[in-house]
Amino acid sequence: MEMTSFADIAPALERQAIELPSWAFGNSGTRFKVFGTPGTPRSPEEKIADAAKVHELTGLAPAVALHIPWDLVDDWAALRAYANGLGVELGTVNSNTFQDDEYKFGSLAHSDAAVRRKAIDHHLRCLEIMTATGSRDLKIWLADGTNYPGQDSLRARQDNLATSLQEIYAQLGDDQRLVLEYKFFEPAFYHTDVPDWGTSFAQVSALGPKAYTCLDTGHHAPGTNIEFIVMQLLRLGKLGSFDFNSRFYADDDLIVGAADPFQLFRILFEVINGGGLDVDSPVQFMLDQCHNVEDKIPGQIRSVLNVQEMTARALLVDRPALAAAQAAHDVLGANGVLMDAFYTDVRPALADWREGRGLPADPMKAYAESGHQEKLAAERVGGKQLSWSA
Amino acid sequence: MEMTSFADIAPALERQAIELPSWAFGNSGTRFKVFGTPGTPRSPEEKIADAAKVHELTGLAPAVALHIPWDLVDDWAALRAYANGLGVELGTVNSNTFQDDEYKFGSLAHSDAAVRRKAIDHHLRCLEIMTATGSRDLKIWLADGTNYPGQDSLRARQDNLATSLQEIYAQLGDDQRLVLEYKFFEPAFYHTDVPDWGTSFAQVSALGPKAYTCLDTGHHAPGTNIEFIVMQLLRLGKLGSFDFNSRFYADDDLIVGAADPFQLFRILFEVINGGGLDVDSPVQFMLDQCHNVEDKIPGQIRSVLNVQEMTARALLVDRPALAAAQAAHDVLGANGVLMDAFYTDVRPALADWREGRGLPADPMKAYAESGHQEKLAAERVGGKQLSWSA
Amino acid sequence: MEMTSFADIAPALERQAIELPSWAFGNSGTRFKVFGTPGTPRSPEEKIADAAKVHELTGLAPAVALHIPWDLVDDWAALRAYANGLGVELGTVNSNTFQDDEYKFGSLAHSDAAVRRKAIDHHLRCLEIMTATGSRDLKIWLADGTNYPGQDSLRARQDNLATSLQEIYAQLGDDQRLVLEYKFFEPAFYHTDVPDWGTSFAQVSALGPKAYTCLDTGHHAPGTNIEFIVMQLLRLGKLGSFDFNSRFYADDDLIVGAADPFQLFRILFEVINGGGLDVDSPVQFMLDQCHNVEDKIPGQIRSVLNVQEMTARALLVDRPALAAAQAAHDVLGANGVLMDAFYTDVRPALADWREGRGLPADPMKAYAESGHQEKLAAERVGGKQLSWSA
Amino acid sequence: MEMTSFADIAPALERQAIELPSWAFGNSGTRFKVFGTPGTPRSPEEKIADAAKVHELTGLAPAVALHIPWDLVDDWAALRAYANGLGVELGTVNSNTFQDDEYKFGSLAHSDAAVRRKAIDHHLRCLEIMTATGSRDLKIWLADGTNYPGQDSLRARQDNLATSLQEIYAQLGDDQRLVLEYKFFEPAFYHTDVPDWGTSFAQVSALGPKAYTCLDTGHHAPGTNIEFIVMQLLRLGKLGSFDFNSRFYADDDLIVGAADPFQLFRILFEVINGGGLDVDSPVQFMLDQCHNVEDKIPGQIRSVLNVQEMTARALLVDRPALAAAQAAHDVLGANGVLMDAFYTDVRPALADWREGRGLPADPMKAYAESGHQEKLAAERVGGKQLSWSA
Repeated sequence: MEMTSFADIAPALERQAIELPSWAFGNSGTRFKVFGTPGTPRSPEEKIADAAKVHELTGLAPAVALHIPWDLVDDWAALRAYANGLGVELGTVNSNTFQDDEYKFGSLAHSDAAVRRKAIDHHLRCLEIMTATGSRDLKIWLADGTNYPGQDSLRARQDNLATSLQEIYAQLGDDQRLVLEYKFFEPAFYHTDVPDWGTSFAQVSALGPKAYTCLDTGHHAPGTNIEFIVMQLLRLGKLGSFDFNSRFYADDDLIVGAADPFQLFRILFEVINGGGLDVDSPVQFMLDQCHNVEDKIPGQIRSVLNVQEMTARALLVDRPALAAAQAAHDVLGANGVLMDAFYTDVRPALADWREGRGLPADPMKAYAESGHQEKLAAERVGGKQLSWSA
Repeated sequence: MEMTSFADIAPALERQAIELPSWAFGNSGTRFKVFGTPGTPRSPEEKIADAAKVHELTGLAPAVALHIPWDLVDDWAALRAYANGLGVELGTVNSNTFQDDEYKFGSLAHSDAAVRRKAIDHHLRCLEIMTATGSRDLKIWLADGTNYPGQDSLRARQDNLATSLQEIYAQLGDDQRLVLEYKFFEPAFYHTDVPDWGTSFAQVSALGPKAYTCLDTGHHAPGTNIEFIVMQLLRLGKLGSFDFNSRFYADDDLIVGAADPFQLFRILFEVINGGGLDVDSPVQFMLDQCHNVEDKIPGQIRSVLNVQEMTARALLVDRPALAAAQAAHDVLGANGVLMDAFYTDVRPALADWREGRGLPADPMKAYAESGHQEKLAAERVGGKQLSWSA
Repeated sequence: MEMTSFADIAPALERQAIELPSWAFGNSGTRFKVFGTPGTPRSPEEKIADAAKVHELTGLAPAVALHIPWDLVDDWAALRAYANGLGVELGTVNSNTFQDDEYKFGSLAHSDAAVRRKAIDHHLRCLEIMTATGSRDLKIWLADGTNYPGQDSLRARQDNLATSLQEIYAQLGDDQRLVLEYKFFEPAFYHTDVPDWGTSFAQVSALGPKAYTCLDTGHHAPGTNIEFIVMQLLRLGKLGSFDFNSRFYADDDLIVGAADPFQLFRILFEVINGGGLDVDSPVQFMLDQCHNVEDKIPGQIRSVLNVQEMTARALLVDRPALAAAQAAHDVLGANGVLMDAFYTDVRPALADWREGRGLPADPMKAYAESGHQEKLAAERVGGKQLSWSA
Repeated sequence: MEMTSFADIAPALERQAIELPSWAFGNSGTRFKVFGTPGTPRSPEEKIADAAKVHELTGLAPAVALHIPWDLVDDWAALRAYANGLGVELGTVNSNTFQDDEYKFGSLAHSDAAVRRKAIDHHLRCLEIMTATGSRDLKIWLADGTNYPGQDSLRARQDNLATSLQEIYAQLGDDQRLVLEYKFFEPAFYHTDVPDWGTSFAQVSALGPKAYTCLDTGHHAPGTNIEFIVMQLLRLGKLGSFDFNSRFYADDDLIVGAADPFQLFRILFEVINGGGLDVDSPVQFMLDQCHNVEDKIPGQIRSVLNVQEMTARALLVDRPALAAAQAAHDVLGANGVLMDAFYTDVRPALADWREGRGLPADPMKAYAESGHQEKLAAERVGGKQLSWSA
């Protein structure tokens, strides 16, 4: 890597912003056990403070995504002011329609109109919150689905979903968007009502120009070429946001880049190719992870750094050389151009770049040495640690 | 199963017609070896004769799909008359753009305009053949893709594909259709240009009302809920045809129903629910299989019988009882209604039904006892047995 | 199916006994939500009562497997007497080393000797319980593993595991056995310490003749041929027990036979071929399921009936005809013999067989009409419903 | 990376030797098409010359593995002398029992004693060749398996396999070894007779100390943790050899490291941990790849360089720091130590190291600029290009 080329890519890096999920700072786990850790937040404010710490050390995470009702507060203006005071914005609002007993058999796609009504109203309430928080995006991920063949009508549910989404879409403000996430399986095991990008695309296309697809990198079948989907959704103008994480098997929600860093590189390469890092890009970057066994704040720091480092590598691809090798059908040459960028160690240059912005050269080290984690553990005693079920 | 209910479903069974692929009667295999068998056809006419034998014994297979150039003949009118004389029609024309050296790096999605030109022209030629044979459907499955990241531009190829398809679509006759098949992987290993139903749907939607998607049951990622895709494509009005087969791992092209009969049942249940067996259904049923180690004619007989038997089971589902159990959220009850139909032994009733139409009660047994296989082995001596590479 | 052949298989059906897991009667769910249902047990005794009800209606489930510490009681003799009074025995003891905070990073394979000590002691305590309950088998499934590459030493953990198991094995009584379960992933996402049958086989072979492998049908990679493993473990003399359930994606723990009935048939066919249903068979049948959205008692009834029905089908395979077709390399013929048995509707004959034993012909219907579920819902009010975390 | 540390790892790098497969220089493809390229070898000698060119430029590939009968010659001493004259040895002998018509239903596991006899004799012939060529290893990969449930007896085949292997094993010379490869699927689609490492391990353990397992990195189910198997086989003393390649979906046989470089790193990390690179290691490194669309000689150069680069990274892991972080259960810290090595750009140091040994700093560039490929294309005109079927 030549320094000149790093200078070339700096503007794009400057634009990079990754929303942090408030829930990543709470406890999480599996159906077998949720382990707690000292210092875990007990309020939305503490989650936001933790997220702000990540931004303070990395400069990469200027917004915090909320999960409703997990993050419900009485005074949204106060929460917004609190966040702003810590240097971050309130970002995407994630609706949660999977933890009330009424949602046992679904929400927006449920066969009962009364349950759909409740779920729709929850989304309308989320829109109101968004107005208060200044959030642009309403992100809808649904746990809807069935566990057994025959349990419900796949078709009727899909039609119900379309109707429910229309009602929500109709209430979007001028600057608000709806992003519909898809997921291969879990918590439903036979079918999910939005299992793949094709379904999300068909649904959001039917809604209109303010509806987009959200791509969670852990929500695909084994072997799926995710960067192809990135390319396709950008081509179709419907890639609204990313939920970054990584997986070895299912929706493991591990740190982004931890399981397959080369896949992350390829995804970011297609993001860049499709304009996803351009000034006017509609693509919102976000993390969606579970730090089941590792510390949460440094887990988030590690994650945004991974995205940044891979973005730098993807930006460094020698595109003219690549195009020339592709045109010559030089398979090894073209692949070699890509791999050269992937194997480039961008860490020293990024450390310099950080220092130039007044950030610590090594945010992981800076956090570890700050004593912040120990301080939180000492201070946050008593109360109830937040988690998914909180 | 009550006899009355079988009478109820008979009209739908009467409508069922499954195209046979001419290539199923030739030798096939893996990259390791193609084994030959005595009696294998040496000409398109012999393939059609074999397909006609399947129809003669089952009444289920009134048409033969062609693969071009594998089935090229000089006189299409003569071939059509030959087929008609044996009681079958010439059906879907499958274009083959993967065996000429020029197609090493793709065909309709290739980066070189000259190769795309050649591939487009091949399809236009197929349209001419369709006019001569009376075929309705041009089925496009592409081997296009890449083996290594960076080998070619995913986006440029997708745009190339769209442009190529437009040119072909523009030449469709009033009663002709284009069906675009998708495939997860193979022969390309990093990416295929039409990997999933979403991509096919996006491409055919851009073309217009005469373009549809073809769903090959072996072309999905592990764990994919195929019946959901069937439901969705029928809902979107874009399910044009099926390529039936079965698989344990990849695109194994085994006999339909052999690997997972319950999956076949669920697929056919959704076909019926979505109107795919209705009088005016746009859905063309077809087999696409490789009989690598088993005899080919009885392999095809077994296949169409499997589709018929599962269709009968799917038709027998007690839909009012199912709807009631679903409405009551009686998970076990609803699943039980479905399973009752699946576990019903429809074979005796179908045997009666066959005899009532002048067909052998047990087509597999009738074929085995006919001595036809031995006759073919004795007669078809010399010449070159046809296979995929022929 | 001829009645004579059903008479032939009746003795084997008489021998069939399937242990029920006590935990199947408690609430279960996913990391997203655990839904409760009216009538859920609040004590080990109520779980046993529910299991006894399943046996009462089916005659198939004469024992209840325990999970320790979930099912801890003060007086084991009293619990045993209680169970016997309801017509069932206490069966396999399942050790649970995944819900104490100390087990965050493992148990028997943990890098800290102190944690391993605690986990070993827990197993020794389980052996004591087994002596009190008259249980033969100690079943060990471990949540041990790591989430990130490098998190711990794969090799050291494997050696730790071997040493821990040796200490437990040394304390087995003369009539007691240790069965080691393997699992592909979950709750650990990067590696599990016993991921596959090969690892379990290597570990139990090193222990000695009283150590066996437990095969959970949901614990394999996508596409794994499970019946091959059944065959191999029976051939090697190391198949100790089954945990039956079914899956579409991961370890879904659905009702056995619900996702792929044909796979269940093939598994039982190999069980029978390998002597797993013989009088002196070492193979213990057991369920391990989660009834997240369906009722629990009928869910268990449906499950044991599914196993019984598939066992009957697998017993009905015309083995001489199969052997003859195999010897002749008649692929379609051999497959056809197998499929004939699979497609046979054994339900009427089994209904007769049940009535001959004083059981209801249709246990699902009998349970539904008994009002038992409503009775439990009315009676079991107050207290804390049990679940995995209880 | 500090230079001192690179000096530390140099001795291990010096020991690294990777056998090249003769068949990688012939044409290969898929069941759809085998594309040829100018300059492809037409004789075993030309394959060996191509392999020697790879060694000349990299110093990493001092031996060529043979495939029998593909590489049959009349005079083995002459072939050996020819290879030695070009600076390489003849290495592992790979038996091929999948291309004769008699092998349609298997070879060593076949139900017919006569076919097993033929297959055993072929292996005995391979042992004779090994004596003539000075090869140590007989590598057995079998295409044996079935396509349909019921087609043959899984158990009888496994027993047949054991007996056949015993007969071959009995004829091994004192310094010869048998390595048994396993494969998940293909070309058989329902079952393969050696599908997993457990089966290979059970079989070679029954044979004796000169029998080992061969691990092909492309022969596993989706999601399999391959480095765990590496660890386990090294722990059990049974890892005999590697067949390196990479895959996105099935057994794609792509260039090693091309699909998931981080997985290759993890595999090599466990190889090193388990002593697989030690002076007395029993582990033989080998490639097994298909260059379907890329040039073959540079494809092999790229492959051995990938293995070398990842080995260097794996050697550079700061093991004391890793052990300390693991002991402290510092999940992020331990993972970070591993990732630091992975993200280190070892290419400049390796270039220096090469130059210090008289090798080109950049073997890919050196080959491209040498004009060798063009020379071969010009010279190797006429004759029949070799491929798998040759």
